[in-house]
Amino acid sequence: MISIGGSLAAYQHRVERVLERMLPPADQMPARLHEAMRYAVLDGGKRARPLLVYATGEALNIPVERLDIPAAAVELIHAYSLVHDDLPAMDDDALRRGKPTCHRYYDEATAILVGDALQARAFEWLACAPELTVAPAQRLHMIQLLSQAAGSQGMVGGQAIDLAAEGQLLTETELETMHSHKTGALIRSSVLLAAACDDAVDAATLAGLDRFACCLGLAFQVQDDILDVISDTATLGKQQGADAAAGKATYPSVIGMQAARHKLQCLHAEALQALEGLSAGLLQDIAEFTIKRAY
Amino acid sequence: MISIGGSLAAYQHRVERVLERMLPPADQMPARLHEAMRYAVLDGGKRARPLLVYATGEALNIPVERLDIPAAAVELIHAYSLVHDDLPAMDDDALRRGKPTCHRYYDEATAILVGDALQARAFEWLACAPELTVAPAQRLHMIQLLSQAAGSQGMVGGQAIDLAAEGQLLTETELETMHSHKTGALIRSSVLLAAACDDAVDAATLAGLDRFACCLGLAFQVQDDILDVISDTATLGKQQGADAAAGKATYPSVIGMQAARHKLQCLHAEALQALEGLSAGLLQDIAEFTIKRAY
Repeated sequence: MISIGGSLAAYQHRVERVLERMLPPADQMPARLHEAMRYAVLDGGKRARPLLVYATGEALNIPVERLDIPAAAVELIHAYSLVHDDLPAMDDDALRRGKPTCHRYYDEATAILVGDALQARAFEWLACAPELTVAPAQRLHMIQLLSQAAGSQGMVGGQAIDLAAEGQLLTETELETMHSHKTGALIRSSVLLAAACDDAVDAATLAGLDRFACCLGLAFQVQDDILDVISDTATLGKQQGADAAAGKATYPSVIGMQAARHKLQCLHAEALQALEGLSAGLLQDIAEFTIKRAY
Repeated sequence: MISIGGSLAAYQHRVERVLERMLPPADQMPARLHEAMRYAVLDGGKRARPLLVYATGEALNIPVERLDIPAAAVELIHAYSLVHDDLPAMDDDALRRGKPTCHRYYDEATAILVGDALQARAFEWLACAPELTVAPAQRLHMIQLLSQAAGSQGMVGGQAIDLAAEGQLLTETELETMHSHKTGALIRSSVLLAAACDDAVDAATLAGLDRFACCLGLAFQVQDDILDVISDTATLGKQQGADAAAGKATYPSVIGMQAARHKLQCLHAEALQALEGLSAGLLQDIAEFTIKRAY
């Protein structure tokens, strides 16, 4: 097992502070909603997407202050999707990040509203947070990237494909389509959001970062599927074996555990290759963490 | 009863065509989700918010083509909020716009995702639809207006206040706070979105439009509460008496039916007064329709 340390841990703390500061205080009306929004977002999670924003920004020499808002915004979208995915009508999960899920700790109606409000807030931050010192056209590009990654042809679309696929036998290609939408789109947007902070990134660099992000997103999901089989609930912070219990298609179930592990190695290699020519040590660390992580 | 005719009916058709054209086709993957998004948005509803966008634009001499995207975007936010509000964990409604609600016609998980995807789409359109011919800074201002009106200090916050108030005795002030968030914020944003299409609206005009929108939003809610008591399910297109059955505080229940009708007249008068000096015939028509409508 590899643990996150050094710059990555520092960036985890950094985005935590940004989120803490930017979210409405828990005593601001409507207090229960704001408290629940903070419960769903703060003090938990690997912050994988914000880390990708910061690590990409480091590779492109972008001032770190300029990355805070995109990093926090993409995490809000991710956090809202977890709250909604955990609902009884969706995955019906009781545990998330080692705590009761939002609808268990509060109630279902509050959890629906928390997700809705977090999504709106992500776009509000990108549109007008003064900390984000980029040109209006760059802000708009960020909102375009994030809204497309979050919507029906990105994350939400992937969740719909996932629900439709429950109990179905999927091919590896169908599984990949599902994941490239469900988790891949937002991971890709994290890298592209950072690149959008600099309006002079050349096309070849952008293409390399994009390929890196696509490989990483898929690797993340393959490892997630493997962990659902081999890890335990305490380490994961969520119910182990939940995918298998729900009859979900996973890489181990579709192509077998050995092939899944092999795929993970190939994706790792391809991800690193895509970074060639860039000084992107932190992105390499994230790729390594992704395939070696135990939670 | 007054019926919508003339320009208002033409604008209703106009926004319908914009929505029809802009929403993803029902056969585009994921097909069930896209079909359900179209089901939830198209072919129904008074389109009160888009009408406000067009009518405000007319008062300010803004080219109508420039109003299409803000009109459609605010309707997407409204439509998503209806889908989520109708869910079993929220108001648990079976009928909406004379059709089965989205979660009844499809399923709960799909309805949750439909709402999520519609919200993302609204911001995507404002960020990058080429039909919207305004400067980047104006687009950003529109995204700010709409995200704040939609979020935890606007519409979603109002829904949270509403849920917390169920079965409680509210004062008239508390009722007004709830509605200024729940429906008022989005109605206000409709007027302000249109004004944002022109970067040269003077402060006095903007203040008048804003006051008009606040009065209208509240009038709309007072009439909604009255109709819940005196109308019937077929005319309303949703369950009559639902508010009373849910123990919700309404204007008739809090201040009495006679006072509610009086309040409606006062709000109407104040709304018209706020338009003085503007050539705003259509906004006047909307105000009249709002207080005289039967559905």
